[in-house]
Amino acid sequence: MSDLGVIGVGVMGRNLALNAVAKGVSVSVFDQSPEAVQRCLSEVSDSGLLDGHSSLEDLVKNLAKPRKILLMVKAGETVDSVLSQIVSGLDEGDVIMDGGNSYFEDTQRREKEMSGKGIHYLGVGISGGEEGARKGPSMMVGGSAEGWETVKEVLQSMAARSEDFPDEPCAERVGEGGSGHYVKMIHNGIEYADMQLISETYTLLHGLVGQGYAKMVEQFSSWNSGRLGSYLIQITAEILRMADARTSKPVLEVIHDGAGQKGTGRWMSQQAFELGVPSTLVTEAVFARVISSASTLRESGKLLTSEPKELSDEMESNVRISPEDLEKALYISKVCSYAQGFYQLQEASTVNQWNLDLSKVAKLWRAGCIIRSRFLDKIASEYEKNPSLVSLLFAPSFLEPVREGRVALRRVVKEAVGEALPVPALSAALTFLDSIVLRRLPTNMVQAQRDYFGAHGFRRTDADGTFHLSSLLS
Amino acid sequence: MSDLGVIGVGVMGRNLALNAVAKGVSVSVFDQSPEAVQRCLSEVSDSGLLDGHSSLEDLVKNLAKPRKILLMVKAGETVDSVLSQIVSGLDEGDVIMDGGNSYFEDTQRREKEMSGKGIHYLGVGISGGEEGARKGPSMMVGGSAEGWETVKEVLQSMAARSEDFPDEPCAERVGEGGSGHYVKMIHNGIEYADMQLISETYTLLHGLVGQGYAKMVEQFSSWNSGRLGSYLIQITAEILRMADARTSKPVLEVIHDGAGQKGTGRWMSQQAFELGVPSTLVTEAVFARVISSASTLRESGKLLTSEPKELSDEMESNVRISPEDLEKALYISKVCSYAQGFYQLQEASTVNQWNLDLSKVAKLWRAGCIIRSRFLDKIASEYEKNPSLVSLLFAPSFLEPVREGRVALRRVVKEAVGEALPVPALSAALTFLDSIVLRRLPTNMVQAQRDYFGAHGFRRTDADGTFHLSSLLS
Repeated sequence: MSDLGVIGVGVMGRNLALNAVAKGVSVSVFDQSPEAVQRCLSEVSDSGLLDGHSSLEDLVKNLAKPRKILLMVKAGETVDSVLSQIVSGLDEGDVIMDGGNSYFEDTQRREKEMSGKGIHYLGVGISGGEEGARKGPSMMVGGSAEGWETVKEVLQSMAARSEDFPDEPCAERVGEGGSGHYVKMIHNGIEYADMQLISETYTLLHGLVGQGYAKMVEQFSSWNSGRLGSYLIQITAEILRMADARTSKPVLEVIHDGAGQKGTGRWMSQQAFELGVPSTLVTEAVFARVISSASTLRESGKLLTSEPKELSDEMESNVRISPEDLEKALYISKVCSYAQGFYQLQEASTVNQWNLDLSKVAKLWRAGCIIRSRFLDKIASEYEKNPSLVSLLFAPSFLEPVREGRVALRRVVKEAVGEALPVPALSAALTFLDSIVLRRLPTNMVQAQRDYFGAHGFRRTDADGTFHLSSLLS
Repeated sequence: MSDLGVIGVGVMGRNLALNAVAKGVSVSVFDQSPEAVQRCLSEVSDSGLLDGHSSLEDLVKNLAKPRKILLMVKAGETVDSVLSQIVSGLDEGDVIMDGGNSYFEDTQRREKEMSGKGIHYLGVGISGGEEGARKGPSMMVGGSAEGWETVKEVLQSMAARSEDFPDEPCAERVGEGGSGHYVKMIHNGIEYADMQLISETYTLLHGLVGQGYAKMVEQFSSWNSGRLGSYLIQITAEILRMADARTSKPVLEVIHDGAGQKGTGRWMSQQAFELGVPSTLVTEAVFARVISSASTLRESGKLLTSEPKELSDEMESNVRISPEDLEKALYISKVCSYAQGFYQLQEASTVNQWNLDLSKVAKLWRAGCIIRSRFLDKIASEYEKNPSLVSLLFAPSFLEPVREGRVALRRVVKEAVGEALPVPALSAALTFLDSIVLRRLPTNMVQAQRDYFGAHGFRRTDADGTFHLSSLLS
């Protein structure tokens, strides 16, 4: 009898199964493709800890009770289909973990259905890519405390551990219901924004500061030793260093800029609208990918300029930004992006009554996942000290850097705008900061207009109640 | 027996009923509140064309066949509830029109259900506010051609007519299924963006050009005579002129800037993400409202600046923008916003097989609705000449203004950024234009990163197929 069942052993499922076996967990696997099962078995030489099954029924029968089943199948209908096939073979107290990128509302629905049968259903957001799955991912678990206690030991044995915090595995229960998948969705949205910010920054290092590839490798490597230190900054340096064998050019010169996406970034934006929270950076990052892939529109874009190269259109001789400005701009934009993400988590937790522990969330992201960074140590410690922070922007570690960095960010955005270099994410960060600082926003006009044509009413700045233009005039 | 039944006579329903009566249409009304029915009846002195009913059953019995029923009830469950109550009394060929702000997917579902019973179900987007409903709104109709033929005469008699095109009433069938409500959703999103753009512009006229209220009234009035001429520009001038009786200040000085919203703007953004189209201006407009209402965040915002007034922080003496720059910036941002809206309509029509007529859509918006403007004449004529335009940006009427205006828009955004005046919508327009002009966007880095950690693959600029970093290096 095995400790863990894994259903679906594509790349991620296989690597997680092998990860568990390496930690001494006995694992049974199933996949609808017998080849996938074979491939998984072939990667373990006779450990006695791994066996494969050709039917879901056999798999379920071969698991020790309470059963622990990890679903690694395609999000969507496949999950429901597998559930309907296995549920009759399960007993009360068994635990199903959905390790895919399921939409959190699907997870909420499934958890309700399963809990009616006494089965624990945990939504487990898993990040770290293929390598993370094999060596130690970050796992964000949502669902019942009892279900979590049953699987905690197995998941924590598999999880990543930060070098600085070796006793805190990156697998934790963050809250109730679909909160694990929600947290994963926010993780991915933040990942989108991080990637877009880095992309804009590298372009500006090149286009405004004038650095070539070799210099940019040095620059990102040096940033990686500082407060920006993170997996994404590190791989950026490595990518900048890579040369294309066919042409001998830097790989970035031959990689097409039409960017794809799989959905969880856009889910975060869509949910931000539902909640009414300003998650602008992820939204700009998603749109930047959309525009990059709008090939017909871009093809016609050349009609808008008479010069073959837009860059030279309005080039000024005295560009006044330094790499230090860019470092500050990138850093505080990152602070804005994480502040927005955690703000969205906080609101979602209130609305859904998840009782999310934000410091646990930050700790889970310190290692294993794509956005891992030393920056997250700081966030974790801020939320540990003060779980009810209004916003990360105002946390002691970030307030002064943001105040100081805003000047640099402004300089950077201004110059980029002048040079026709689109910087939607950096610009969104500056707009966000300027908007919350400005005492009166232009939206008083919006309110006046809404009342003018729709009698929606507005508040006054100097009295309570709802007013209309007509009442002000008389 | 009446020609038209109106269910729900709140402000909008009542005004539409009275509008129909004024055009000689006999109308029966129902409302669950007897007072609402009474109030409606009291506004017509003995025309013999209006009667009220205290039950849905009576109302239905009192309609001439084929029955024409206009629902003016709250969008959502109320619509389904009313439908379930009236459907058994209806016959094949009867027509139900939903005139509320229903979500287009609900309309698609209801249309399917009703067409199974031989009943035509039309989603009718209605714009124009209270006054428009009474005097002549714009009505965007989606659903079967047969259903439309039944109600066409009544709806067109009630609709607005543009002075320049008196023979083309602003009530038309735009396409199949839920397309009428989709078009209304896009109308509202565009309205959000128009309002935000105007709001940013007035702030800059004040903050950058140095105009006071009296001068701004003149400015907007003069713009209203030019290519920006529109209902929203006109009411902006009127609002700028209004003084608060209590304080004698301009009303804008006492109107709180926390802006509300009812949902259809955000629906457009959410749908843009579903379709993968870059509707960035409406999105920024929605977020601007969200941020304006984030009072806790804004309250803490003062921590970010050491000066009481941010405006003076980095004020330069030589602000170099003119009212003409602002006019150009506003105009071409509006072009961007409408280009995005029509692009989204085009994509939605393809995906949903609505066969939308974009020139009809533009014609419907020329009068009656909130975004009515002479600008829409131009759009209508461009789509009439070329229904398969890639984007309005490249239409003959707009290409040159956009090319020329981009320089002004850049100057405006640059100065606004420098002065810490947040201009998310103007800035989004510039980013959009710069992004489609730039030959290589920073997203080649995003693609490289996605492949690095997730093996997602990318295209090359110089060869077909999907590649990976590993394959480039060897």
